[in-house]
Formats: sequence, structure tokens, C-alpha cells
Amino acid sequence: MFKKNKRINYFDLKEFSRKIMEKIGCNTKEAKIISEILVEADLRGIHSHGIARLKRYVDHIKDGIIEPNKEPITIFETTNSLIVDGNNGVGQYVSNVVTEKIIQKTQKSGICIATVRNSNHYGIAGYYAEKIAKNNMLGISLTNTAPLVVPTYGKNMLLGTNPIAFAFPLKNNELLLVDMATSVVPRGKLEVYSRVNKEIPLGWATNELGIATTDPNIVLNNMKKKKGGGLLPLGGEGEKFSGHKGYGLGLMIEILTAGLSLGSFSYETYEKKGKISHFFMAIDISIFGNTEKIKDHVINLINVLKNSEKASGQKRIYIHGEKEFEKRKINITEGILLDEKTIDMLNELEKLL
Amino acid sequence: MFKKNKRINYFDLKEFSRKIMEKIGCNTKEAKIISEILVEADLRGIHSHGIARLKRYVDHIKDGIIEPNKEPITIFETTNSLIVDGNNGVGQYVSNVVTEKIIQKTQKSGICIATVRNSNHYGIAGYYAEKIAKNNMLGISLTNTAPLVVPTYGKNMLLGTNPIAFAFPLKNNELLLVDMATSVVPRGKLEVYSRVNKEIPLGWATNELGIATTDPNIVLNNMKKKKGGGLLPLGGEGEKFSGHKGYGLGLMIEILTAGLSLGSFSYETYEKKGKISHFFMAIDISIFGNTEKIKDHVINLINVLKNSEKASGQKRIYIHGEKEFEKRKINITEGILLDEKTIDMLNELEKLL
Repeated sequence: MFKKNKRINYFDLKEFSRKIMEKIGCNTKEAKIISEILVEADLRGIHSHGIARLKRYVDHIKDGIIEPNKEPITIFETTNSLIVDGNNGVGQYVSNVVTEKIIQKTQKSGICIATVRNSNHYGIAGYYAEKIAKNNMLGISLTNTAPLVVPTYGKNMLLGTNPIAFAFPLKNNELLLVDMATSVVPRGKLEVYSRVNKEIPLGWATNELGIATTDPNIVLNNMKKKKGGGLLPLGGEGEKFSGHKGYGLGLMIEILTAGLSLGSFSYETYEKKGKISHFFMAIDISIFGNTEKIKDHVINLINVLKNSEKASGQKRIYIHGEKEFEKRKINITEGILLDEKTIDMLNELEKLL
Repeated sequence: MFKKNKRINYFDLKEFSRKIMEKIGCNTKEAKIISEILVEADLRGIHSHGIARLKRYVDHIKDGIIEPNKEPITIFETTNSLIVDGNNGVGQYVSNVVTEKIIQKTQKSGICIATVRNSNHYGIAGYYAEKIAKNNMLGISLTNTAPLVVPTYGKNMLLGTNPIAFAFPLKNNELLLVDMATSVVPRGKLEVYSRVNKEIPLGWATNELGIATTDPNIVLNNMKKKKGGGLLPLGGEGEKFSGHKGYGLGLMIEILTAGLSLGSFSYETYEKKGKISHFFMAIDISIFGNTEKIKDHVINLINVLKNSEKASGQKRIYIHGEKEFEKRKINITEGILLDEKTIDMLNELEKLL
């Protein structure tokens, strides 16, 4: 029984999640890695990808969208590439196996790219990029998703929120981590505004005519019924603020994930199975010369940015990943604070045990 | 003598540019490739990177920022990597040599990345990505630039406009080409608004306090004097429309270009020499399996996007590169129309011959 407004120890939360996932049919390896990645998101304050998703995973397994106890299958392989069929398995498990394989391959070959088809939602993209970066490699992780984003000048949701994660190892176990959806905002942000009856800024999402709107309820309702409209790509509506650039990034990620793996594009996902596609790349930094010198050089860049003059009214310039790693430190010791809806959901799921 | 409001044959323009560049000290190989890439930009309607820049290249050579007759030097090399010092040479020449080398290396090894330091402005990023893609490879081209972009919450221009170019080969010599700066807009767009005394949209650029402004003259003036403010990253000011994502992309490109090559970051460029850094990647599509199947799959994606319903009032959904390739077809046969200022500049340069 979890209590509202009370911080929960991250280990307890992980154990709870593991038990639920095992109960619903996952083997221990799958249950552990899903739970690890969900709680890792909460530790970093990315609650949209945290334990709040547990119920959705449970439902996806019940509905057969995710099939537990499935091993990913290698379809094709070269020195520098690995093409994997996720076998409709657990996205996190598939992605973790694949990430470990390309780290091994990269230790020998310097660079390796894996593409994965027929996988499922894999949680925070950054997890895998970071795992790669912990091996003195530059790590990249991309995925397509359910279709939620409209192309520039288009009316229908065809592209995923298609995140890019880029991790670069620094020193003292630190790293730089860019982890960003290529839509302006995630759907979850519209839900937050809807709950408090607040208008959304013009440029986040479009209505059923494909025109930007400030009403989050209209958008969310249309999105559910696929009546037209959806999230806008980074840069917003049309080309005024370069929405075509966000659209270009989203398109690039469709090609790198589903294109190269012959997998399903975002608009073909979640019919019967999840059919999500991923792309992972590991590059050993030593193929560019002296790894330590390169790290020092990048640390200089980071320090120059952080120590530069702030815009009026601003106290701090952030480097990507910093905010999340600071939250993690606090949440590891003090526990994770979840919203009331999530607590209710967890207590409901507890009945399964 | 070029005439105003009259279309110029692309070949004549290229020849004129070649003669000027040779006159100013470039060897024929350098003069040819600069001219080829400048006129290629004009053919595609990207006049900001076209022959309008010729005077700037002439000045850079006179000022010693660009040194003609310098060969790039290979610093370090592995099966999958090439680290090059541009030797302060002509950016287009250096980049073209490096691109050709990694195409050759990729034919054997499947993937190759080149990083380049101490180069100069290389023109349109897409040129090199496209050159790679013409070899049934996925091509990526990145560069840093003069510092023009402020980091999120920062006041000073520290990052370049840092473009990403991504080219993917289709069939019948067609290709998809995403080629985008990671700033909301280029500086040139502010100049256009300034010339016609028009306000810029709030979210393109900041004033000397680091706050978004609608006055292009204030921004351009401050940029010239480095008094604070500059272009905003894709996504605009602060985090409301996810400006931190554009900042993250810009930062990623600083690391991939100057970071990995131990080159100069954007804020260190154009002191005495240009000191621009680039990153090129070629990936043979056959390392993922059947190239033709993958191309067909990507062409399906493109057709679904193009044929999908349009937003109200819109007639067409574009695929990246399409607009430019269509303009190219027209300009190849009908000639290139340049603005009056550019014609004046060309006629002034003609006196050198």
C-alpha cells in the first residue's frame, strides 16, 4: 500500500514493479529491466516515462501487444551492424540485449549500429545511449513511437514523437545526455494543461482541421478518435518558426529506425502488436585519437557555456542531462514523490500480487 | 557585366566564379569546387549560401582567413575513421577531398566517419551528404560556424548555426535531403526583414539583455558589435516551445565536429583563421541487408506522407529536398535570378579580371 504525498524508496518501487511484471507473465530478466528503466525515469524526474506507465505495460501484455518470454532474433549482421527482430517482446529487454551486443562489437570494431524492428515501447531513450557512453563510447539511441505528430502542412498524425538520445562520456562517471522528443512537447504536457483547464501555447498542437489551437481538450479528444490534428513537430506550425526542421528530424528518425530495419513506420504501429523500431549506435571515442584529450576538450566547451553571461533574469545555463542527474541524486536518498493518480494506480495493481 | 533582373546561365556563373577565385590565388581544383558548390546553392534557391558569398570568400583569402593552395593533412586514421587537419585551406576543397576519401573507405568497411579541424566555411552542408548518398550510402554532414546562436538562458553568441545535413538515396537518382541549421532562422533572414523595415516574429532572436525582441536592427547591430543577444536555437526562447532542444542539437554538433577533431569550438573561430570544424559520415546501406528493399520501404513512407490529408488551406506536404530539387530543374534551364545587390557585387568583382 503506497501513501499519497510520501516519498517512496526507489528500491522498493523497483521491487514492486518487478513483482507485478513477473505476476503478469514476464520472466525475471524482463521484469527486472523494465522496472529498472521505469524507476530510473522517475529518479530523474521524467515521470511521463516512469512507473506511471506500469499499468499500460500490464495492459499491453494482457492484450498481446507485448509478448513476454520472447528472445530477440538476429536477422543480419556485419562487423559494424546488427539487424534484430524484437519478436514482439518486451521493448526494454530487447533494447538492453541489443545495446550490450553492440557495446561488445564496438570494443572490437570501433563503431557499430543496430536497428531493431517488431519491438515495443522501450522507456527513456537516454537509458541505452547512457549505457553505451559508460564504455568510453559515444552513444546514440533513437526510436519511433505511436503516431502522434503531424507533418508540416499535414492534418493527420503520421510520425512518432521520435526521440533522439545522444550521450557523451565526460570524467568522474559524468556524462552529457541530450534526450529529446522531436515534437514540440509530449502528449503528456497537453494532459497536464487539460487537467487544470489551462490554454496551451499556440504552436504546440493542431485541431481537426490541422490548424494550431490553444484548447488542449479539443486536441486530446481528436487524438483519441484520430479525427485529425495532433502534436506539432519541434518548431511549431508551418515554417514561421521552422516547424519543417522538427518534421525533418522526425522523418530522419523514421528512416533510421523503421526504414533501415524494414520495420513498421509509426503510422503502422499498435495495430495488433506494438511493432516499434529502434536504432542504436556506439562509437569508440579512441577511433578519433586520444580519448582523454577529447574528453578534456569537450569539458572545456561545457565550462565555457555554463560560465557565460546569463540572459536578464536567468541564474543558470544548463548542460543537457544536468537537471536530471541532480534530481536523481536527491531522489536516490530522499525517495521518489509520485502524483496521486499514480499512487492510486499502483495500489490497484497491488491487488494482483 | 551582369544585368539586373535577368536570369544568368548557371554555367556562365560558375565560370565567372572560377576565374575570380583563380585570380585571387586559388588553384584550379579549389576554384572549381568553390564555384560548383556556390552555384549549386543558387540553383536550389538557397541564395544565402550562393554566389552572394563570393565577395566574402575573396575577402577571407585577402585577409588570410582562408589560405589557398593548402592540402588537408591526415592526422589519424582507422578502418572506420579519418581525422583531418584542413590546414586553413579552402573549406569546400578540404571537405570534398575528405568526402571522397570516406566514400572510398566505406566501400570497403561499411561505415566511415571523418572529422575535420582548421577548415573554413564549406558552403551548403547538403552538398557533401548528397555526394555520399549518390553512392548508395546514407550521408551525414555537420559543421560548426561563426558563433551566432545563444544557448538557452544565455546572453552571448557561443554556438554556431551548426547545420545537420542527412541524405538518403532513393531510386532514379532521387534522394531525400534534410539540410537544416539548428537555429530557428539564419542571420540572413533578419537582414531581409531589416531591409524592408519589418518586425521579426518574437522567438527568432534576442536583444543585448538576452531577451527576445521583434526589432531586427537592434539584433543585427548588437551581433556585429558582440554586445549580447543573437539568434535563438530551434524552438525559440527558454523552454516554452522547447528551445533547449535546438540548443541540445547545436551542442551535439559542436561535440561531433570540434570536440572529436580537437578543433576550435564556434566561439573560438574567426580570430585569425577560420578554424571551422566538420563531421562527415557515410554508411553503406547494404550493411543493413537488401539495399533495394530498404529504398522501396522508405519510398513507401514518403508516398504515405505526401498523399496524406492536408491541413486546412494547404495544398501540399513536402518531403525534404523536394522544393530545392524542383527549383534546380527550373534554374538549370531558365537560368538563375539574383538580387540587385549581388549583381552589383559581381560587377564590382569583374574588375579584378
